[in-house]
Amino acid sequence: MKPIDRVRELREWMSERQIAACVVLSGDAHLSEYEGEHWKSRRWITGFTGSAGTAVITADDAGLWTDGRYFIQAERELEGSGIRLFRMTEPGVPQWGEWLEEQLPQGSSFAVDGRTLSVSAMKSLKAKLAEKGIQAITDLDPVGAIWKDRPDIPAEPLMLHDEEYAGLSRGAKLEQIRSAMKRAGADYYVLSALDDLCWLFNIRGRDIPFNPYVTAFAVVGVHNALLFAGGHKATPEDKETLAKDGVEIRAYDEIVPFLTALPEAPSVLYDPNKTGYSLAAAIAPSARIIEAPGLVVALKSIKNDVEIRNIRDVYLKDAVALVQLFKWLQETVPARPVTELEVDEKGLELRRQQPLFAELSFSSISAYGENAAMMHYSPSAEHPVQLEARSFYLLDSGSHFLNGTTDITRTLALGPLTDEEKRDFTLVLKSVIALSTAKFLYGSTGSTLDILARKPMWDNGLDYKCGTGHGVGYFSNVHEEPQRFSFKPNEVRLEPGMIITVEPGVYKEGRHGIRIENTLLITEDVTTEFGRFLQFEDLCYLPIDYRAIVPSMLSGEELDWLNNYHAKVYDKLAPLLDEEHQQWLKRETAALL
Amino acid sequence: MKPIDRVRELREWMSERQIAACVVLSGDAHLSEYEGEHWKSRRWITGFTGSAGTAVITADDAGLWTDGRYFIQAERELEGSGIRLFRMTEPGVPQWGEWLEEQLPQGSSFAVDGRTLSVSAMKSLKAKLAEKGIQAITDLDPVGAIWKDRPDIPAEPLMLHDEEYAGLSRGAKLEQIRSAMKRAGADYYVLSALDDLCWLFNIRGRDIPFNPYVTAFAVVGVHNALLFAGGHKATPEDKETLAKDGVEIRAYDEIVPFLTALPEAPSVLYDPNKTGYSLAAAIAPSARIIEAPGLVVALKSIKNDVEIRNIRDVYLKDAVALVQLFKWLQETVPARPVTELEVDEKGLELRRQQPLFAELSFSSISAYGENAAMMHYSPSAEHPVQLEARSFYLLDSGSHFLNGTTDITRTLALGPLTDEEKRDFTLVLKSVIALSTAKFLYGSTGSTLDILARKPMWDNGLDYKCGTGHGVGYFSNVHEEPQRFSFKPNEVRLEPGMIITVEPGVYKEGRHGIRIENTLLITEDVTTEFGRFLQFEDLCYLPIDYRAIVPSMLSGEELDWLNNYHAKVYDKLAPLLDEEHQQWLKRETAALL
Repeated sequence: MKPIDRVRELREWMSERQIAACVVLSGDAHLSEYEGEHWKSRRWITGFTGSAGTAVITADDAGLWTDGRYFIQAERELEGSGIRLFRMTEPGVPQWGEWLEEQLPQGSSFAVDGRTLSVSAMKSLKAKLAEKGIQAITDLDPVGAIWKDRPDIPAEPLMLHDEEYAGLSRGAKLEQIRSAMKRAGADYYVLSALDDLCWLFNIRGRDIPFNPYVTAFAVVGVHNALLFAGGHKATPEDKETLAKDGVEIRAYDEIVPFLTALPEAPSVLYDPNKTGYSLAAAIAPSARIIEAPGLVVALKSIKNDVEIRNIRDVYLKDAVALVQLFKWLQETVPARPVTELEVDEKGLELRRQQPLFAELSFSSISAYGENAAMMHYSPSAEHPVQLEARSFYLLDSGSHFLNGTTDITRTLALGPLTDEEKRDFTLVLKSVIALSTAKFLYGSTGSTLDILARKPMWDNGLDYKCGTGHGVGYFSNVHEEPQRFSFKPNEVRLEPGMIITVEPGVYKEGRHGIRIENTLLITEDVTTEFGRFLQFEDLCYLPIDYRAIVPSMLSGEELDWLNNYHAKVYDKLAPLLDEEHQQWLKRETAALL
Repeated sequence: MKPIDRVRELREWMSERQIAACVVLSGDAHLSEYEGEHWKSRRWITGFTGSAGTAVITADDAGLWTDGRYFIQAERELEGSGIRLFRMTEPGVPQWGEWLEEQLPQGSSFAVDGRTLSVSAMKSLKAKLAEKGIQAITDLDPVGAIWKDRPDIPAEPLMLHDEEYAGLSRGAKLEQIRSAMKRAGADYYVLSALDDLCWLFNIRGRDIPFNPYVTAFAVVGVHNALLFAGGHKATPEDKETLAKDGVEIRAYDEIVPFLTALPEAPSVLYDPNKTGYSLAAAIAPSARIIEAPGLVVALKSIKNDVEIRNIRDVYLKDAVALVQLFKWLQETVPARPVTELEVDEKGLELRRQQPLFAELSFSSISAYGENAAMMHYSPSAEHPVQLEARSFYLLDSGSHFLNGTTDITRTLALGPLTDEEKRDFTLVLKSVIALSTAKFLYGSTGSTLDILARKPMWDNGLDYKCGTGHGVGYFSNVHEEPQRFSFKPNEVRLEPGMIITVEPGVYKEGRHGIRIENTLLITEDVTTEFGRFLQFEDLCYLPIDYRAIVPSMLSGEELDWLNNYHAKVYDKLAPLLDEEHQQWLKRETAALL
C-alpha cells in the first residue's frame, strides 16, 4: 500500500467520524527526538522518512511540514503521494497550526493523537483554534486505527548503568531530584522523557536505534519510585538492585490508571514540554498540578567529574578508530571502488574494536561530493554512491560507549580541490577556531556566542541554515538539551561542565558540503572585578585536513591555533596507535607555515 | 526641608490613610526617559538626582533601587536620608516589587501614582502582590500630597516641525498610522509617549531640557485627531495648519473625561508599555481594548531618505564644533586652569555657531580622569574639577539640530598615559571596529551582534556593565527605541534605515574611564543564495586620539580601518574648516604604520 492509498483510507476513517482533519506528528508518547518503529505514524502515512515533520490531512488536501535540512529529501519522497511540501523555515510559509486554522470550517473538529503532543504544544494549539470554535479530539490514534501491521512498542532488555560509568549513584540522583521536588512543593514527579528517566535511574536499553533507552514512564514519590517499564526483561538481580533504591517496576500501560487513581489531592509535578497531553490529562482531577520544566535536565546537563574524565577518554578512542578509517580511505579510494556505505560500515567495524563500545550514536552521514550539501544525508544500499579521487568526502558520525557518547565530523580532500572548495573549507575552519577560542562572561548563552562562528561566513555572503552546535549526552542522546549554539535566541546560560559541539559548515546544493565538528567542554577562565569568565576545552582530537586549507586566509593567531591543535592531536593519539598509523598521523598533523 | 524630613511627612500621610507603603517612580504620565521638574517626585523625596530609580517607603524602612550607572552617585546622595540603596543589577538583590511583597503584611495596601506606571508594569505588579492579598491604591499622588512648592506641568510654546526637515508630512504619517489602526481593527489610538506623538504630528517643544517635546496626550480617530496640549502656546497660524490635517488642540487635562465619555463600545488601541495605568483605566468601560506595542515606533525607527541625508549632515556640523573644541582644549590645558564644566560650556558655545542648532541632546558627560569611570557623570559648579596635562578626558555629548540629533563620545589623551590606559583605549577601539565592520544576516538583532564589541574586552577579563549602543531619534530623544546593542537578549530585528550607536568602554573605578562612541546607519550589503545581508555606514567622523593607540595591538585589517576612517574624517571635515583647523586635523588624522 502506497502513501496515497493510506491517506485515502485515513480520509474514509475521518469521514465516518465527521472529523475534518488529522494531524500526524513525528514522535512517541515520550516526545523523543527519535522514536521506535511503532511510533513512526507520520512516516507511514506520508512516505517521508526524515526525522522531523508533521502531516496535516484534510478531506481534500494534505501537507507535510519540515525544515531546511529535509527540503530536498522530502520533495523526492512525497512525489505521487498527493501531499504538498510546506517549507517550514521559509518566509511566508504558514505554520501547520495556522494552516489548519485557515482550512477548517468554523465549529469543525480535528483529531490528533494526544499522547504525542506535549502539554505546552496542545495548550497553544487549542488557544489558536478556540477562536474559530474548532474542537481537538485527542483520545483517538487516527493512523493507528488503519495501520494493520504496525510494530509493537519496543521492549528490549533493560540494563543497569554502573555507577563506575555514571559517576553518581541512583540513590544520590534521586535525592537531588527529591530536593528539587521539595522546593517546588511536589509529592509526585511524573517523567516521560526517556533520556531524563534513564539518567535518573541509571538504566539503559536498546529500544530505539542509536538511542540507548528503555521505553518507560516514571513516577518519583517522596520515598519510592515507580518505573513503568514492565514489558522489558529486567533480570531478578537488577530488579533487586533497583528495589534497594526504592524503585519498583510496573507494566508500561499501568501509568495511566496509576495517575488517575492518585490518592487525596496530591501535588503532581511534570515538565509541560516533555509530557504528553493525554498523560497529563489522566492525572487525578483532585491533583494540584505544578508545571516545571527541566528538573532532571538542569542536573544532567552539567557533567560530573567522572563523566568528564570518561568523555575525554572516549573521544580519544573514537579518534583512534577514525584515524584508522581515514588512513584506510586515503589508501583505498585511489586503488579500488569504495562506496559511501562501505566507509560507514568500515567505520563501525573499527569502532567496535574499541573497549566499552556499545553502538553508533546516530546514523552516520557518510556523504561524497554534492551529497554532503544535504545536511542530514544518509547513504543507502539502493543508491550506492562511489567516492572519487577528487573533491570532498564528509563523515559525521559518533559512538556510544558505556562511558560516554561522541559526535565528530571531518571533511576530507580525496584528491584535487577547486579554489572555491578550499576557500569554503578554510572559512569553516576559521569559524571553528573563532568559537572554540572564545572567552565569555558568565551569563552568556549559546545565542550570545553563535555569531562568532557565523562571522567568517557572513563576511563572505555565506550562511548555514542550522544551529552551530548542540549538547551531547553521556551514553545517551547525541542531541542533548538544553544548551545550543544558535542564531535563534535562547536563554540557556552556558555553565561549566556542559558539553557542546561546534559544527559550522558550507552547503552548496549540487556542488559540495563542508563541515568540521569538534566538541567543547565549558570550563572556568578568570574572575576579575568585571565578572566571571568562562572558556572552552577541546574534547575532540582528530586531524583537520591540511590539503583543504588556504594558509594565507588564516591570521597568525588562527595558524597558531591550528598548529597547536595538531600538535596536541599527535601527542594524545600517537601513544594509542601502532607505528604505521603514528607515521600517518605525523604527516597529517605537521605544522603549516 | 531635607529628604529625611520629607520621608517623615510622607509617613504621616501614609499612617493617616492606613497605607503600608508608597512606591515613588522616576517618571511622568508619559513614561518618558527624562521628565519635567513637575514629575521629579522620586528625586524630591529621596535626594537622589540620577535619571533612573524607584523609591519604596514603608512605615519603618525605605529603599532606593537604581542600576550600575548610578551606584557611586546614589550612595553619596542618599547619605543621611535614612534610605537604603538597593543595587538593582547585582546578584541576590531583590527587585523592588519582591521587596515590597516581602515587607508588606497580608491584606495591607500600598500607594503608587497610577499615572506614572505603565499598564504592563501594573499588571505584573498586581499579579505578584495579589497572592498576599495586597491592594494597590493607584488614584492618589502620595508625594504630590506633601510637595508644597511643586513646579507646574511644563507648557512651553509648541512649534511645528517643517516637512522640509521631517521628510514626511503630518498627513502622510497620519495616513500610515490609520492603515495600521485599520489592520488592528481600532477606532481610536491613544498616544501618551511624547516622542511618538511629536513625531506623528510633526511638532516639537521645549518642555523638558534636552528633549524637544510638547507635553501632551493624543487620540487619533479614523478621520480626525485630538492633541491634548492646550496649555501650550500654539500660534493661531500653527493651529490652522494643524486643523488642515484634521488635528484639533484640547486642554491637557481633558484627555481623561474624553476617554471616559467615548461613545458606543469603541475599539481603542494603546501601547501597554507606554500608557499610564490610570489613563488606560479611564477609558469607557464599554470599549474593546486592543493592546498593541510600537505602532509609531515601527515607522519612526526607520529613517526616511530626507532624514538620513540630514543626519549625515548634522554629524559633520557637530564634528566641526568638536574639532574646534578639541584643538582649543589641547592648547589651553597646558596653558591655564580649565575645568570640566568650562569645556562643556565652550562646546555648547561652539555648537551654537552651527546653523539650525537647537540645544544639546543630553547633559554632557564632561569627565576628567577617574570621573570618567562613572558612566553617567555630570560636571558640577559646586565641585569643579580641573583638567591636568596627563591621563584621559572623556566627553560624551550631542546636539539637537532642527534636522537631526547627534551623540558622540571621544576620550582624549591630555598628556602622558600609562601602559594600562593605552592598552584599555586600544581595546575599546578594537571593539568599535569589530562592530562597525560587521556584515550580518537579515534577522539579526542587536543582541546577536553585541558580542562582537565585547570580545576584545572579554578576551582580557574586561567588560562594561551597560549596553553597547542605542537608537538615536531625529530632533528627538537621544535614546530612541526599539533597537539596541545589548548583552541582554532582545528580539528587535535590525532594519535598513535604523540608526544605532556603538559605544563600548572600559571603566575602572578610581582610575580611568574610556569610551569611544560612533553612530551607524544600517544599510544593505549583498543578497546571495544564503540570504540577505546588511552592514553599517559610519555617520560620525571625528578623530580618534592616536596618542592613546598601541598600533602593535591592532591587526592589519584594524589598522587599515583606522587609517581609512581618519582619511575620510579629513576629507569630510576639511572643507568645513579654516586653514588653522585643517592643519590641526591633518595631524590628528595622519595614518599610523
